Amino acid sequence: MDARAFLRSLPIPIIQAPMLGASSPAMSLAVSKAGGLGSLAAAGWSPEEIESQIADAKAAGAPFAANFFVLETARPAPGEVDAALARLAPWYEAVGAPVPEAPNTFAPDFEAQFGALLKAAPPAASFTFSILTADQVEALHLRGVLVIGTATSVGEARAWADVGADAICAQGAEAGGHRGTFLKSVDESLIGTMALVPIVRQAVDLPVIAAGGIMDGAGIAAALALGAEAVQMGTAFLLADDSVISPPWREAVMKADDDSTRLTRAFSGHYARGIENDFMRRMRPVEAEVPAYPIQNRLTQPLRAAAAKAGNAQAINLWAGQALKLARPGEPGALVKQWWDEAKAAAMAVSARVQS
Amino acid sequence: MDARAFLRSLPIPIIQAPMLGASSPAMSLAVSKAGGLGSLAAAGWSPEEIESQIADAKAAGAPFAANFFVLETARPAPGEVDAALARLAPWYEAVGAPVPEAPNTFAPDFEAQFGALLKAAPPAASFTFSILTADQVEALHLRGVLVIGTATSVGEARAWADVGADAICAQGAEAGGHRGTFLKSVDESLIGTMALVPIVRQAVDLPVIAAGGIMDGAGIAAALALGAEAVQMGTAFLLADDSVISPPWREAVMKADDDSTRLTRAFSGHYARGIENDFMRRMRPVEAEVPAYPIQNRLTQPLRAAAAKAGNAQAINLWAGQALKLARPGEPGALVKQWWDEAKAAAMAVSARVQS
Repeated sequence: MDARAFLRSLPIPIIQAPMLGASSPAMSLAVSKAGGLGSLAAAGWSPEEIESQIADAKAAGAPFAANFFVLETARPAPGEVDAALARLAPWYEAVGAPVPEAPNTFAPDFEAQFGALLKAAPPAASFTFSILTADQVEALHLRGVLVIGTATSVGEARAWADVGADAICAQGAEAGGHRGTFLKSVDESLIGTMALVPIVRQAVDLPVIAAGGIMDGAGIAAALALGAEAVQMGTAFLLADDSVISPPWREAVMKADDDSTRLTRAFSGHYARGIENDFMRRMRPVEAEVPAYPIQNRLTQPLRAAAAKAGNAQAINLWAGQALKLARPGEPGALVKQWWDEAKAAAMAVSARVQS
Repeated sequence: MDARAFLRSLPIPIIQAPMLGASSPAMSLAVSKAGGLGSLAAAGWSPEEIESQIADAKAAGAPFAANFFVLETARPAPGEVDAALARLAPWYEAVGAPVPEAPNTFAPDFEAQFGALLKAAPPAASFTFSILTADQVEALHLRGVLVIGTATSVGEARAWADVGADAICAQGAEAGGHRGTFLKSVDESLIGTMALVPIVRQAVDLPVIAAGGIMDGAGIAAALALGAEAVQMGTAFLLADDSVISPPWREAVMKADDDSTRLTRAFSGHYARGIENDFMRRMRPVEAEVPAYPIQNRLTQPLRAAAAKAGNAQAINLWAGQALKLARPGEPGALVKQWWDEAKAAAMAVSARVQS
């Protein structure tokens, strides 16, 4: 099946964004069972976990995607980890946790993850942070896996088309969490969803999944009007059942007003959008100097865990997109159905408006 | 008539963005005659010009808006103008134009413009750069003028609602030209249209005009799906007949690929989005230090005029929004009708998709 037919075969063209650290396999399953497409946040899993989680999801019988971060093996320069830990020491002290020893590994090995992905062969796999090779895409195709590449610019969408991807997830600047940018600088790759979806559509002959700022049925209808084949929603699920965000993160989302998000690379070494807090503000002058993902991400992990446990929202990554104040609680499958009903109503209202 | 009824009374809910330096009264009239709403770029006019241009537009018999920059009188600090001119001297030399004498005035006086606006009383007036007082809004209402305030955040939309504005132009981060931001920093006020329109709608009970990234009928249908009462399109008109952009600016728009725009305050002293060129790149390290609008704008005026005349795109402000590669040539009224036909088709396609 080609990607357009696959996306069209979904009863509801809503993809739950993978959201490593916020989603759960239970959320993914609930979305898939409701007629949408759940995403497994596989980027943090070992090869064994990938195989077993994908096997479980396949056994459940509903379509789903597994999401991965395309990463090189982290090789910090001599002294880089110690310097980064020294910079974080006051933060560890503030939350009452010991500065960790320098770790030996920083993230699961992507090559090994990719091998497990090929074995497990989910219906679809989505990728961010960088791009696959044409050989890797071909290997996935031989296993019947549809390949969704994340793009934040026309150039990135073309690059994914060139390696044979089946669909493009166009990640607008509004989106919460890590940016998928891999070609130019993040500053040059912050295109709003309203602009990005049409220019990507014009540039590549692949189905486009719209992501960024879509929080309800009105947003879904808008994305479909722009020509998207489906939408990907993440922030909209942050307050849902089966979201695994910590209580202070949840509270920060609930009390958000206006757009309180900013981009930062201080938490992970890769630019991401989240609700601004003390860590983001105070680290801003040095954030360009912190080690690249996954090193910084690994070094702040115990800090963020300790802060979350202490209920301290000022030292944890509060990933969220720009329209976060529209997030609402609910059972994930029920939310998907509710949003789809709203999308139908919004589409009908626009039809009436343009005919009047 | 209230603003919602006014916008609903337009045969086509497309507002041509004022675009000082790019639009013309002829463009505005063509849009209004086609059933949309033209905007006069009144910000650069003397009180006499404002009165006569608005009188001409009223005589033409179609509805229109006049747009103003809400500005304090510029009072440069001692030495500020000389320092700014010294910084610009190499640029003047490069285009073969003399460095100008320090001017005595930098922009038309807003208070005087406002007096002329009250006298001339167009059907609608839109404002950007800052906010009016409640008394000023009241004075416009007494003259039957609908007041449209530009907002780039929920806070700014609320501020406009508080002074009694009739409608909000929600300017998404995608938009070309000057940012309407007046409360927080520009960095904190770059919300994509897909996120901004729904959060503004939720926050204020006023009709919302969506601006930023809207380039065709698909974008119009998307904005209406988000709940906008109308759209404002600027970049979409850059290549239209009656656009007065210089040949190098036009050429830069025509050959744009991907999103080649960035924000800069180097040209005018106020952040604006345009196609990145040498001036923007080389001035970036010092752009935070240039005098605020309108001072820097006035000091670069002869430079930009000389560069435009010489066909040099590297020293002129190439204002454009993020989806500029979708700009197309045509007669402005014909474009408005074409986009509206496309919007109808897009709305019908979405209706079919959500029912399937």
